[in-house]
Amino acid sequence: MAKTDVLIIGAGPVGLFAAFYTGMRDLSMRIVDPLPEPGGQLTALYPEKYIYDVAGFPKIRAKELVKNQVDQLAPFHPIYNLNERAEKLEKLADGSFSLITDKGNKYEAAAVIIAGGVGAFEPRKVVAPGIAEFEGKGVQYAVKNLEMYRGKRVLVMGGGDSAVDWVLMLKDVGAKVTLIHRRDSFRAHAATTNQMIAAHDAGEIEILTPYELRRLEGDSKLERAVVFNNATQEDKILEIDEVLSMVGYLSKLGPIAEWGLELEGSRIKVSPVMETNISGIYSCGDICAYHGKLKLIATGYGEAAIAANHAAVIANPSLKFEPGHSSEAKDAPGTKPAVAPVVGADD
Amino acid sequence: MAKTDVLIIGAGPVGLFAAFYTGMRDLSMRIVDPLPEPGGQLTALYPEKYIYDVAGFPKIRAKELVKNQVDQLAPFHPIYNLNERAEKLEKLADGSFSLITDKGNKYEAAAVIIAGGVGAFEPRKVVAPGIAEFEGKGVQYAVKNLEMYRGKRVLVMGGGDSAVDWVLMLKDVGAKVTLIHRRDSFRAHAATTNQMIAAHDAGEIEILTPYELRRLEGDSKLERAVVFNNATQEDKILEIDEVLSMVGYLSKLGPIAEWGLELEGSRIKVSPVMETNISGIYSCGDICAYHGKLKLIATGYGEAAIAANHAAVIANPSLKFEPGHSSEAKDAPGTKPAVAPVVGADD
Repeated sequence: MAKTDVLIIGAGPVGLFAAFYTGMRDLSMRIVDPLPEPGGQLTALYPEKYIYDVAGFPKIRAKELVKNQVDQLAPFHPIYNLNERAEKLEKLADGSFSLITDKGNKYEAAAVIIAGGVGAFEPRKVVAPGIAEFEGKGVQYAVKNLEMYRGKRVLVMGGGDSAVDWVLMLKDVGAKVTLIHRRDSFRAHAATTNQMIAAHDAGEIEILTPYELRRLEGDSKLERAVVFNNATQEDKILEIDEVLSMVGYLSKLGPIAEWGLELEGSRIKVSPVMETNISGIYSCGDICAYHGKLKLIATGYGEAAIAANHAAVIANPSLKFEPGHSSEAKDAPGTKPAVAPVVGADD
Repeated sequence: MAKTDVLIIGAGPVGLFAAFYTGMRDLSMRIVDPLPEPGGQLTALYPEKYIYDVAGFPKIRAKELVKNQVDQLAPFHPIYNLNERAEKLEKLADGSFSLITDKGNKYEAAAVIIAGGVGAFEPRKVVAPGIAEFEGKGVQYAVKNLEMYRGKRVLVMGGGDSAVDWVLMLKDVGAKVTLIHRRDSFRAHAATTNQMIAAHDAGEIEILTPYELRRLEGDSKLERAVVFNNATQEDKILEIDEVLSMVGYLSKLGPIAEWGLELEGSRIKVSPVMETNISGIYSCGDICAYHGKLKLIATGYGEAAIAANHAAVIANPSLKFEPGHSSEAKDAPGTKPAVAPVVGADD
């Protein structure tokens, strides 16, 4: 079925929660995302990292939060269209919407929620011979599985939080960990930078600054990195198995910029109820902009709930905006809609 | 120490999360609540019930969510002033605030967040002889511990969701469960009402309508309820051990209404950044009002994060509004503030 009540663009944590609340209103939903798995940045960039600022979790690994959200959404039978990028969104004469994807598929919906995070994002790539050749076969842009580095000689490139944090985690796993950074100073938190320097002083890791990558070498697999001191131009050869390139990310709105939405920089302007300038299209999470907007998962969840409950009324005008409280539901979600508030219930 | 950076009024889930985000900004906080335990309605009204609509939890018991939040907040060493009601809030000449409580204590803070839920709430009480006498010794207004009803003969009064839901949970625990309701129809969800009627038809519970309570009787402990059919006025005697009165709740703003805050009905009007009409006083959760406001835990959490991050800048003007992402913190909260965003971090 190519038509659902609500179409959600973005399968990150905020998109998943928008889908969940769409389901709580007993509406059908499709989720489109160019990444191969749900979870957005959490899955693609830092699945193994702990998140500390989601309410109710003193700490939780990013990938576990995503799994929980996928499980929470499952009773509503979401249609996932992963590995598929939203290309063109049009409003039809009857007020509903039609989306064309990069696969040429056409999906229709009564309302749309854009929860696109930072938009299409990709790692910034160092330009040097060998990088492209060993991509995915020795060169990685994110740690998806810490264990794959066990016993390996790892070269980390970068000087921000990601690079420093991962050096500290890799030092207990890898056979040898070397960090190169093109400047002498680090942009990471002072506390973690100091921890890393202490690890260096204790001989646990190697830090080379101001160093850059000249080229990667190897036959069938990655064997060496040639790096150079960018002050002296002197080369140094490192025997390595893996490169972790953490020199930042580039993000862009991509095709969304062409849909006629009012933007603020590269973000989508929304009203206090998360509606864009096009009636029936809502936005939530890091991709939306409004006065006082905070880019946090917790605020994204709240925005998702607001967007979904408003989109629900568009998709089914007989619904009330206020959804009621889930704790009143005797049964789990998906078996019965929750409608009555706890307080004020009388005899 | 009577002065903290931020003073939070209300220890419900939203107040606890406002306190957590205050801590994430490395600021001190005090939480004042008239209830004896943190958790607000979740602890006082439905600790044993499942909540389904908090992001990341397919389901979680209300009391477990509260416990998790208390644990999440603990590293920031919150000062809890429980069993204490905020009575009078004044803005001082230097722009800070002074709160007087019903215990006569005076607490000062640079900024205030009112996360007062539905305000001061209390159960609506049936007026009948014996009710006051057996309150807390046979008459309860909420189930705090399902096990205390094991093997007991329980009279439930009410016809809304709370009454019906608890009858369904008590039938497997109590020796005998009787529901009286003053009308013939129920206001609870159709699905759960039907479950209850099926349990009645199977002889598992007793339902008496249209019945009301005439009086409770007993010597040292509750022994009998005299109820009457309000159509025929005929009395009926029930041998019981416990009464669970679930005929609704009354809520009111209480002293907060006198603080000069702009109200919308019995809620506090806030700007898009959760600020009230008095600069430095913020509000979030069910007690606040703005266009498009949804009374959900998920939206309350988002509002709490916004309120706390704005209050943080008031309390410490050298802080930036945007807090950065917790997943960048190598260590757990409380050990190091998180400041840098994930995306855009470069080398």
